[in-house]
Amino acid sequence: MEKGNQNVFGIYGLGTMGRNLLLNMADHGFPVAGFNRHDDKVTLLKEESKGNSVQGFTDLTEFINSLKSPKTVMLLVTAGKAVDEVITEILPLLKKGDLIIDGGNSHFTDTDRRYKDLKEKGFHFIGMGVSGGEEGARRGPSMMPGGDKHAYQLVKPILETIAAHVNGDPTVAYMGPGSAGHFVKMVHNGIEYALMQLIAETYEVLKKGLHLNNEAIHAVFKQWNDGRLQSFLLEVTRDIFVFKNPGADHLLLDDIKDEAKAKGTGKWTSQVGMDINLPIPTIDIAVSMRDLSKYKTLRVQAAAIYSDTTEMPLEDNPDEYIANLEQAFYFSMVTAYAQGMHLLYKASQEYNYDLELDQIAKIWRGGCIIRAAFLEDIYSAFSTNAKLEHLLLDKSIQSTLKNSLPGIRTIVSDSAKFGMALPAYAASLNYFDAFRSEKMPANLIQAQRDYFGAHTYELIGKVGVFHTEWQSDVS
Amino acid sequence: MEKGNQNVFGIYGLGTMGRNLLLNMADHGFPVAGFNRHDDKVTLLKEESKGNSVQGFTDLTEFINSLKSPKTVMLLVTAGKAVDEVITEILPLLKKGDLIIDGGNSHFTDTDRRYKDLKEKGFHFIGMGVSGGEEGARRGPSMMPGGDKHAYQLVKPILETIAAHVNGDPTVAYMGPGSAGHFVKMVHNGIEYALMQLIAETYEVLKKGLHLNNEAIHAVFKQWNDGRLQSFLLEVTRDIFVFKNPGADHLLLDDIKDEAKAKGTGKWTSQVGMDINLPIPTIDIAVSMRDLSKYKTLRVQAAAIYSDTTEMPLEDNPDEYIANLEQAFYFSMVTAYAQGMHLLYKASQEYNYDLELDQIAKIWRGGCIIRAAFLEDIYSAFSTNAKLEHLLLDKSIQSTLKNSLPGIRTIVSDSAKFGMALPAYAASLNYFDAFRSEKMPANLIQAQRDYFGAHTYELIGKVGVFHTEWQSDVS
Repeated sequence: MEKGNQNVFGIYGLGTMGRNLLLNMADHGFPVAGFNRHDDKVTLLKEESKGNSVQGFTDLTEFINSLKSPKTVMLLVTAGKAVDEVITEILPLLKKGDLIIDGGNSHFTDTDRRYKDLKEKGFHFIGMGVSGGEEGARRGPSMMPGGDKHAYQLVKPILETIAAHVNGDPTVAYMGPGSAGHFVKMVHNGIEYALMQLIAETYEVLKKGLHLNNEAIHAVFKQWNDGRLQSFLLEVTRDIFVFKNPGADHLLLDDIKDEAKAKGTGKWTSQVGMDINLPIPTIDIAVSMRDLSKYKTLRVQAAAIYSDTTEMPLEDNPDEYIANLEQAFYFSMVTAYAQGMHLLYKASQEYNYDLELDQIAKIWRGGCIIRAAFLEDIYSAFSTNAKLEHLLLDKSIQSTLKNSLPGIRTIVSDSAKFGMALPAYAASLNYFDAFRSEKMPANLIQAQRDYFGAHTYELIGKVGVFHTEWQSDVS
Repeated sequence: MEKGNQNVFGIYGLGTMGRNLLLNMADHGFPVAGFNRHDDKVTLLKEESKGNSVQGFTDLTEFINSLKSPKTVMLLVTAGKAVDEVITEILPLLKKGDLIIDGGNSHFTDTDRRYKDLKEKGFHFIGMGVSGGEEGARRGPSMMPGGDKHAYQLVKPILETIAAHVNGDPTVAYMGPGSAGHFVKMVHNGIEYALMQLIAETYEVLKKGLHLNNEAIHAVFKQWNDGRLQSFLLEVTRDIFVFKNPGADHLLLDDIKDEAKAKGTGKWTSQVGMDINLPIPTIDIAVSMRDLSKYKTLRVQAAAIYSDTTEMPLEDNPDEYIANLEQAFYFSMVTAYAQGMHLLYKASQEYNYDLELDQIAKIWRGGCIIRAAFLEDIYSAFSTNAKLEHLLLDKSIQSTLKNSLPGIRTIVSDSAKFGMALPAYAASLNYFDAFRSEKMPANLIQAQRDYFGAHTYELIGKVGVFHTEWQSDVS
């Protein structure tokens, strides 16, 4: 059984992701090992490996012993307490200089804490975001490692081999120190929430606004995915709109409850955005709408009360309208990525990550859930100007964005008029219109704050803070 | 100098709030004492008290000794570390059974921790939100105490006396156990952020959309404040639109920078909403827009690039348009309060606060920053039905809300068309339209999540969770 300590990579946790990453490595000839407490997971790994160079263990010591020194153990366990427990469990079996990689969706503050703690104890630690879902893990994910730069060199050859490749370049790169990898992955997921909400709202317009049937909706997403909107998420959506269970006469989609779940990374993105004062409203509203979807009972009650206030359909000429919708989607997609990139820009300063935004766009072009044709444009924008602070200031993106304004304005304007909920589209447009406001009405907010709370204000062209007794009768 | 230990209430921290609360108590004949390390603050207190029953101290022991047992010390110091430091400082001077009140804007999780810690040590602790600004503190604030119910009885007579009164009822009431008081105050502030953002956007429409001058804008806010929109914040706004510095020929408002500051309570509200999965998008966007206002340099750059995409004015007939705007404001104001109350409803379950929403509306009718004529309607809704889950389901509110729909639809629709940023108005309307959706497009989001991440989905009318291999070629 035992082949000796020659395995170059070990994974603790043989769920779908762990198993598929190991199989991916084995496909490329790397001798690797997996561990799981439960027999069935190990059996499944062995079955699927079909004689490839993968070993599976239910005994932790045997698993660790099978690894070549310096040993690399990647954890793929549920984010949170379990990560700390597993680290505590394996540390006695490792030696100083060994490397632990956390490949789950850990909160970046946990990663910072673990990095510091393990460094003090003499171990290397990498917090790495892995995107691509089960299929990505199996065929080529996008990976965002951060933390110990020196230790990254140990695993770089393996990770670059198993990653997806775009124009010959692997979709993995060292992101930065500490929790940089998990932070970048978190923002990736925040953008993912926004894009999924935008697609859901597009479905809403096509179905409730234009009364298209599922076949026609499929055709729209298929067409879009063949053009500038090409993306993995549209591909997925296109497929969903033809999927029927064997023998069924209608789409599986129509049987699924309209209550969206979430694992927290989108929420974290919004919360961090607020912590570092960086506005990402399209992501925020995507998080809110998943939450709202869960209040089904309330929604049914509200629908009964307020249903008479809707006027549909939006438009009698669907084809013309779909051209507007395509522009609206393009516009909002750009805005969602722009917000995410801006958050990375600011976070890089706040947390000293020293992120290279062009490199991030580069490794997101393949393997990950938000891969899209448009990422080439983002990559190009940040390659051309490494100091670019905001994507909407890029010269090349400006013109296409301007061209898509009639579409987004029509869609958001009509939805408000006719009573259709398109919160992410509306948030994208309003973000844009506020962002391009040389003067916002925030002077009034500061005046109010000073009036009732003596919070002071600043003056245009004058240094200092000022306070006024706004009421003549104030004591 | 020393009058002996007869003072019934002590305040640590003689900033505007602390000083004014003491003066308020003294006005009503309570013998009270204040402490501050800095001489000048104590001198100011003594000057302003004009022979009233207020003592000021710079010596902590003398201050504590001046209090009657069981002693009550209220802290009005900057939220955060300072509160813990002051507690550590005064504890040795207090006896078991004495009461500490934290009257600042502490984060509710800090309050929970302090409550537990002080209880173990034998002290009473109350976390109390105080609203009303400096003028409120002086003349009658709204106060939201939570924590030790028994200890609240000790200070109830004083607090009920110094509070504002509405129809003879004081604007203070025991909120609930633990951090209930600070939680309610936090949500109060979240609603305040939303209302201030809505007023700022109204200013935007009146100024940039309708090209009204400040005098005309003043007239609009004055008229609104005389009607169903009456509120403290509109009163403040009305005053701001006539305020000129002595000798100046234009409004002070026009000189104030359009960059809004924040102290964090709005942000906390949004973050907690996300933590307990309760959507409050109008509050979220108000937080985001304060943040966006600070990116002045970026906004100026973006304005230069995208200024040609605006079409103004919105409308040639301002009077007619202002009627729409009044409806829009009414609608969004209702939505903002509804979101806040819904958050309290959910938080009461999550944190076992056992909140009485009608009592909260009742004490918000006077003294606090968000006091408004509409709070009578909220009070009435929750008094009529103590189990009401969402304000928009209240029978009486339904009809006025429906009547205001034409206005909000027009304003949001036009703003999208003409390029004016009204994110809080748009978020309110979209929240409403999503809330009244019996079916949301969230089934597509669940299908996508299951497609790429095997996250499973639920089916309509069927118990259990399900997973599908959506791609025929998946391994």
